[in-house]
Amino acid sequence: MSNPMTVEVPVLPAGPVTPCCAPITSAELSPADAAKMAAMFKALSDPVRLRLFSKVASHPAGEACVCDVADVGVSQPTVSHHLKKLREAGLLTSQRRGTWVYYRVEPSVVAAMSALLDTPAAGAF
Amino acid sequence: MSNPMTVEVPVLPAGPVTPCCAPITSAELSPADAAKMAAMFKALSDPVRLRLFSKVASHPAGEACVCDVADVGVSQPTVSHHLKKLREAGLLTSQRRGTWVYYRVEPSVVAAMSALLDTPAAGAF
Repeated sequence: MSNPMTVEVPVLPAGPVTPCCAPITSAELSPADAAKMAAMFKALSDPVRLRLFSKVASHPAGEACVCDVADVGVSQPTVSHHLKKLREAGLLTSQRRGTWVYYRVEPSVVAAMSALLDTPAAGAF
Repeated sequence: MSNPMTVEVPVLPAGPVTPCCAPITSAELSPADAAKMAAMFKALSDPVRLRLFSKVASHPAGEACVCDVADVGVSQPTVSHHLKKLREAGLLTSQRRGTWVYYRVEPSVVAAMSALLDTPAAGAF
């Protein structure tokens, strides 16, 4: 019998984070897919949040702790709030190690956003 | 001396709409670039607006008039408001022909958003 005290609880929700969708030029988004993708774009719609996201994404080894990214001119609680929003939207994953929480970009989600906006060459429009 | 009544005010700002930026995994965004790119992501952060954008983008010939895209379950003024926001963010351009305004995706802006989110293969993270 397993001991409930030793069961590891995942930090991230178990729900699917892998989207979706054909390039936006090839097919109309369904209402459900539009709601899902709009939530992802919303996570990047704040300049400070986008800078934090870029700091994590461009950090060596693709991983950063709060201490690595906090110099964006806002308070520590605001930084934590923004990182939480990015995590809730599926764009970052997090892992606690010792006293710090480390953040990584979730490549499948970001790739889905990029693919959705993948347009043919300008001349094709 | 110019007559202020005859000065033509451009509908679109004259500033450059062509962004920006290296892939987010390769370099940290500057505050100025983050502000610019966040405004573009904000334009896609509303589900109805994103559906309208996808309807224009996926329409034959990459062009659509209001009459082609208005069936998204909101009022005509709301559709017009969302299309205006997409135009102001640089994601759509518009052209009046006769009684209709026709909208097109601005490929350079959308390509810049996609490129910013262009991540290496998942394994590289």
